[in-house]
Amino acid sequence: MTLDPSVTAGLLVIGDEILSGRTKDKNIGTIADHLTAIGIALREVRVVADVEPSIIEAVNALRHRYTYVFTTGGIGPTHDDITADAIAKAFAVSIDVDPRAVAIMRPAYEKRGIELNAARLRMARIPAGADLIVNEVSVAPGFRIGNVIVMAGVPSIMESMLHSATAVLQTGAKVVSASIVVSHAEGEIAELFAAHQSQWPQVAMGSYPAFKDGQYATDLVLRSTDPVALSSAYNTLTAKLSEYGFSFVVT
Amino acid sequence: MTLDPSVTAGLLVIGDEILSGRTKDKNIGTIADHLTAIGIALREVRVVADVEPSIIEAVNALRHRYTYVFTTGGIGPTHDDITADAIAKAFAVSIDVDPRAVAIMRPAYEKRGIELNAARLRMARIPAGADLIVNEVSVAPGFRIGNVIVMAGVPSIMESMLHSATAVLQTGAKVVSASIVVSHAEGEIAELFAAHQSQWPQVAMGSYPAFKDGQYATDLVLRSTDPVALSSAYNTLTAKLSEYGFSFVVT
Repeated sequence: MTLDPSVTAGLLVIGDEILSGRTKDKNIGTIADHLTAIGIALREVRVVADVEPSIIEAVNALRHRYTYVFTTGGIGPTHDDITADAIAKAFAVSIDVDPRAVAIMRPAYEKRGIELNAARLRMARIPAGADLIVNEVSVAPGFRIGNVIVMAGVPSIMESMLHSATAVLQTGAKVVSASIVVSHAEGEIAELFAAHQSQWPQVAMGSYPAFKDGQYATDLVLRSTDPVALSSAYNTLTAKLSEYGFSFVVT
Repeated sequence: MTLDPSVTAGLLVIGDEILSGRTKDKNIGTIADHLTAIGIALREVRVVADVEPSIIEAVNALRHRYTYVFTTGGIGPTHDDITADAIAKAFAVSIDVDPRAVAIMRPAYEKRGIELNAARLRMARIPAGADLIVNEVSVAPGFRIGNVIVMAGVPSIMESMLHSATAVLQTGAKVVSASIVVSHAEGEIAELFAAHQSQWPQVAMGSYPAFKDGQYATDLVLRSTDPVALSSAYNTLTAKLSEYGFSFVVT
């Protein structure tokens, strides 16, 4: 059971290095936390290789399905950075070095003693009709075209762009959550918990195996966009657990 | 540029807790490393919620596209564990408590003093025609149906199932890799590196920004299923880097 939120998002992680295992992705968790906190529901993530048709297909699938699509990776200066061109093709628009991007990059690079060579100018290639996204870490901007927000893959740069980009997005009701650690295995608590879920359809209830002091335990997580329903579902659950003699810790 | 391997895989991570940010996925990296090591190329990952139509759609999309599909999550004893039923629907087969699974679970549970109640019997629900996958951690098995391998989400249990399942899979040529850390920013090295990629189409070359001793640096990664080509591409790259005065460390 999942909540039916008003503002949704898909995430597309682009990069051979994630699929080969060489780089362990950290952006999915960061973006999931951030979107949950601001009231955008992340509904799907895809990871694809640095292959143009794969990027185009995934972007087009996701952008028609969710309010927003975030992408990470593939906007650097090297030949394997093909995201901006793939996005332009997905939207069937042209792409070229954007004077607005150059105007940001040139003085910042001069100040840092970095040459704005042909490779680095690749990072100023922006699809026609896109808005730039501020990068406070390494200057070369991300961009937004339609409902697609294109960000770097390096976590610190991605975070800067994520905060720049999401400041102006439409957001929905925030999901509030509460959790209880029960000192019993999932299989002991399952029947009671399923009955409780049936009673509170507006609250999404998940159960996750855990360990506590070397013993089996279970995290019960309740989530809802309705704080009153969450509170009631939570209170009646703790009452039921007590009634049936399950010991638990409120977290 | 990505290698064109003979044996490919897709991965489907199932769980609201990943999309909400509550749980940070660790299985993608583990599975990517393992598949790379045994000669199966992971080509795509999707993360979807605990929602039946989402699981069915993703499984069906991936299983027709890749040699194998691995799934993680949603095969526990609670009401939010809906993966087995969703997989049965994706394959249009029936699903019921499987005597083979019960025969494994009952004696092991008795030995551990765990009651095989109705909730735990949910974990013995296996789609018709599936083979069981051994779980050395918590006994309740995973399963394989067609080219789809269904595993638990808890990392230790997933790892046990992954090793059980992949022991009998078809594998392809292993990808070998080599990397060089250049003590220069990506933008300095990009032109030379792009020219080198053009010269060695059978070797996939990726560039990743890094830091070394507080300075900008770049990891250059070369990957190929052809060890001879890899070695030649690697040696000519280090020669070129030296010729053009770029300092680097072989890793």
